[in-house]
Amino acid sequence: MATKARVLYNFTAEPGNAELTVKEGEIITITNQDVGGGWCEASNALGMTGLVPTDYVEMISESGGSILPFGPSGKAPSTGGNLAAFDPFSTSQAGYSGSPVFGSSFPPNNQANNADDPWLNWNTTSAGTWSTNNAGAAEDDEWDDDWNESKPPPSIIPHTESEAAETGLARGAPRNNSVKMPRNRFPTFIKHGPEVYLLSKQPVKTTEKITIHKGEVGPVWEYPTSSLSCVVADPKKGSKLYGLKSYIEYQVTPNNTNRSVNHRYKHFDWLCERLLIKFGSAIPIPSLPDKQVAGRFEEEFIKMRMERLQSWMNRMCHHPVISNSEVFQLFITCRDEKEWKLGKRKTEKDDVVGIMIFSTMEPPAEDIGLLEAEQKVEMFSKFTKAMDDGVKELLSVGQEHWKSCAGALPKEYQKMGKAMQNLSQVFATSGYEGESILTDPLTEVGKTFEEIASIFAEQPKKDLHYLMETNQEYKGLLGCFPDIISVHKGAIEKAKEGDKLVALNKVTPQEKNTMVNRIGTMSYAFQAEMNHFHNNRIYDYNSVIQLYLQQQIEFHEMIAAKLKQALTHFTVQQ
Amino acid sequence: MATKARVLYNFTAEPGNAELTVKEGEIITITNQDVGGGWCEASNALGMTGLVPTDYVEMISESGGSILPFGPSGKAPSTGGNLAAFDPFSTSQAGYSGSPVFGSSFPPNNQANNADDPWLNWNTTSAGTWSTNNAGAAEDDEWDDDWNESKPPPSIIPHTESEAAETGLARGAPRNNSVKMPRNRFPTFIKHGPEVYLLSKQPVKTTEKITIHKGEVGPVWEYPTSSLSCVVADPKKGSKLYGLKSYIEYQVTPNNTNRSVNHRYKHFDWLCERLLIKFGSAIPIPSLPDKQVAGRFEEEFIKMRMERLQSWMNRMCHHPVISNSEVFQLFITCRDEKEWKLGKRKTEKDDVVGIMIFSTMEPPAEDIGLLEAEQKVEMFSKFTKAMDDGVKELLSVGQEHWKSCAGALPKEYQKMGKAMQNLSQVFATSGYEGESILTDPLTEVGKTFEEIASIFAEQPKKDLHYLMETNQEYKGLLGCFPDIISVHKGAIEKAKEGDKLVALNKVTPQEKNTMVNRIGTMSYAFQAEMNHFHNNRIYDYNSVIQLYLQQQIEFHEMIAAKLKQALTHFTVQQ
Repeated sequence: MATKARVLYNFTAEPGNAELTVKEGEIITITNQDVGGGWCEASNALGMTGLVPTDYVEMISESGGSILPFGPSGKAPSTGGNLAAFDPFSTSQAGYSGSPVFGSSFPPNNQANNADDPWLNWNTTSAGTWSTNNAGAAEDDEWDDDWNESKPPPSIIPHTESEAAETGLARGAPRNNSVKMPRNRFPTFIKHGPEVYLLSKQPVKTTEKITIHKGEVGPVWEYPTSSLSCVVADPKKGSKLYGLKSYIEYQVTPNNTNRSVNHRYKHFDWLCERLLIKFGSAIPIPSLPDKQVAGRFEEEFIKMRMERLQSWMNRMCHHPVISNSEVFQLFITCRDEKEWKLGKRKTEKDDVVGIMIFSTMEPPAEDIGLLEAEQKVEMFSKFTKAMDDGVKELLSVGQEHWKSCAGALPKEYQKMGKAMQNLSQVFATSGYEGESILTDPLTEVGKTFEEIASIFAEQPKKDLHYLMETNQEYKGLLGCFPDIISVHKGAIEKAKEGDKLVALNKVTPQEKNTMVNRIGTMSYAFQAEMNHFHNNRIYDYNSVIQLYLQQQIEFHEMIAAKLKQALTHFTVQQ
Repeated sequence: MATKARVLYNFTAEPGNAELTVKEGEIITITNQDVGGGWCEASNALGMTGLVPTDYVEMISESGGSILPFGPSGKAPSTGGNLAAFDPFSTSQAGYSGSPVFGSSFPPNNQANNADDPWLNWNTTSAGTWSTNNAGAAEDDEWDDDWNESKPPPSIIPHTESEAAETGLARGAPRNNSVKMPRNRFPTFIKHGPEVYLLSKQPVKTTEKITIHKGEVGPVWEYPTSSLSCVVADPKKGSKLYGLKSYIEYQVTPNNTNRSVNHRYKHFDWLCERLLIKFGSAIPIPSLPDKQVAGRFEEEFIKMRMERLQSWMNRMCHHPVISNSEVFQLFITCRDEKEWKLGKRKTEKDDVVGIMIFSTMEPPAEDIGLLEAEQKVEMFSKFTKAMDDGVKELLSVGQEHWKSCAGALPKEYQKMGKAMQNLSQVFATSGYEGESILTDPLTEVGKTFEEIASIFAEQPKKDLHYLMETNQEYKGLLGCFPDIISVHKGAIEKAKEGDKLVALNKVTPQEKNTMVNRIGTMSYAFQAEMNHFHNNRIYDYNSVIQLYLQQQIEFHEMIAAKLKQALTHFTVQQ
């Protein structure tokens, strides 16, 4: 189905790559959304056709064409008020607004700004309601509300666009999906300086305990004896408001209870947001697969989103801290609407979030000095940056390769097959006795080449796809580390000021020691996560590369077998 | 080595195919002469690089740049006089100059025209001498003269260019080689009308006999009991005039004598010309591989030319009429210079040429009526036209496929391999214990991908190459049939006028009957050649397609084996 789309960024076609040059703002027609490898096929107003990176374009809803940042009423959505609960230090923190902790990549996100750009707060709180959707009523935690799922979602906002430019996205490198939802990854609380935790006087009132052990490889999280896993399956289309609004519901079945719960994308999104708020300073919480607007109910898209939700759930399940958390358990076990609402409210009022998560950590010791802590952060920072480059390189060449394997080559095999069959048909008209000893096998060879064309076209979905998805996932994970590293660096910087602060009588010597000890705790947590990451990475890449090789072996063997079969049709050996 | 070249025809790059658009007359730099599949890589004055069909360009000699149609003296070469020997009917034939036999594709080739365009006569007679080369002296049949081999050869001439346009060459379809030597395929004699043979009074004074038998498939040539073959090998650079002029000499060894003779390209060329003059009305005599100017002594080129000379020789050896002919035997056996000169002179004075070749044919009967003869010609004409289209289609898709296999894919495998090795190097810096269980195999996989890149790049030379060469050869053969078919059609038309001619008293009833009988002889010859062609075609395509499949099987099995080997480096199975 051809869909109109608006171009979000300039994209210059590389010569000889069947790509299409498009300009920001240009309206193009998507002729094939599923070319694979992060590409879609589009044609422009001049009728030129070519490939464009899927996420350089946004689909235009079929109803209106334009995607409005405001609902039809033109009223800005009301801004939620419960953020204040996470901001007890809002006044006292003013002095840290220029702190280097999160640098310039985090634009100020206060309520004044939210009012200017209503889309900024779409994931900061569920209290933000769409005037059009909910007729002005704040349906705080309605089990089944339609929050941004049945109306055209927000267009990408200018600042997100410039962010994309700033981060220097590799040309044509695959990004998650078609429409970028503006996402200010770290909510407001992250502006709280490290002293919120470093200088907090008394233990937080919580029973939460996150234990860190000394393992063979260094500090490690406490891993459960049996691993949790959840199957995301059985997407079903549901509707409400007498069929006016429809949505897809997924069945989530954890292996510990084996009792399935149903969740819509918006519930996953809520979970992701809560995990980010709670654990995002210590643990990378990758974004969910982006939502797609056009063709939201197309089978292929639903399958792809489900597969990516599954990958995301796998990663969460395999993380001992995440999987053990109250909010995650709520998500995978709660089947009762009332209970869900209660759990949701409780979660949203939780104030052991942001840097305060470290207050729940119980390390085996606190014997890590500032210098050592700093070195660990530095080392891992360098590693993740280098890995990010490596992953992007692999994604970029993989994407090129995908185009050849699924595009050019099958076409060529098909043409070869057709040409051989045509030639065979011509030969058959020769009237020469014994012609069939050539035409029979030649026709078979031609058909075989057409079969090989299909095998080629389907192959990337069997192997390159997984290599790409894993790298894509790691690209997402790696994108979380700059924030985490900033949290740690900021805390270390603060603690390093300790002596000066004591001299200025800003903190007591006792408090200074507490700060150093807490850096120790943070470093244990940091190393535990680092080791978790490395361990998973080694496992994941080991798996996916082996899978890729195995599938490629099968692929080449299958083609060899097909060709051998074709060879048997020749009765005259040369 | 980068060489300058002049563009001969406009060529418009197909989008997305890494091609370069060039204009007639443009000077470009050849950056890679050996991309394969009939393509070279070139860059233009603007620095844009891309692929251009090899024979759309002519190399420019390094000495002068421009290729002069006249030698530096500015004097036109003297025109040879011995053509008259082949033109005894020159006056009486005037009435046939407008005959439809060869239509407009054969421009008049008389001496007046030769004077206008000296290059037209380069292969009509060896008496045409280059004023610059031979200092005005006519070295008629010098064993080792330098006739157009050590000076810049002629540029393509305007009328040849327009011929190329007329024949509607498929866009980018491979043609033989870089520089087109103007070649007026059918020499002057072909203007002789069919009555030269149909009405010839007495048997030609010759002992030549070409026997046609009735075979299982219909009329067939008389085949020798043992098949002749010649090995073309051992190209050696020779020089003369104290090293000023150099050339390549090939060793030709026939299997019947096992005594090798040495021949330069110009000798092959002479042979080809003589065969065309003598047998060209009955048997397709394909052109030799074209000569190349720039890089004439480059190893790869010499190898390619030798391979094609070998293919050409094979085809000639396998033809019972050709291989049995005096001129061919002279070529493959004569080792004595004097004997060669005598043989050459004798051959050039032979007047059993052109349509007169049919006077040497001895069919088993002459019982073929005009209608049947006409139907046979018509049927084969249709067949060869259709086959010509089929062959060109296969050449065209094969060429595209070559580009992917030898160009894009190896680059991608290389990049994949490099990306994996880079990622592995990054991983090695993690400092995580047990990292090597990932980095060791990942590095190996990366190296394997680089190896696969080379295997891919080399493969087309092992399989697609032969498929292309065979099709190329058949394209050449098929290009000869329109002439042969014209000879036969012209003769049949003439014979069909028989009754009218009798009524007008132009011929006697006896002569009319002779004409019909001679058409019968021609038809036997035609069918014998048709059956020879079909028989060879079935054999050749059977061979080359099987070879292609076998090589492709080996190729895919080799890649599978390489990947399996890479897989063994993983110590952790998933």
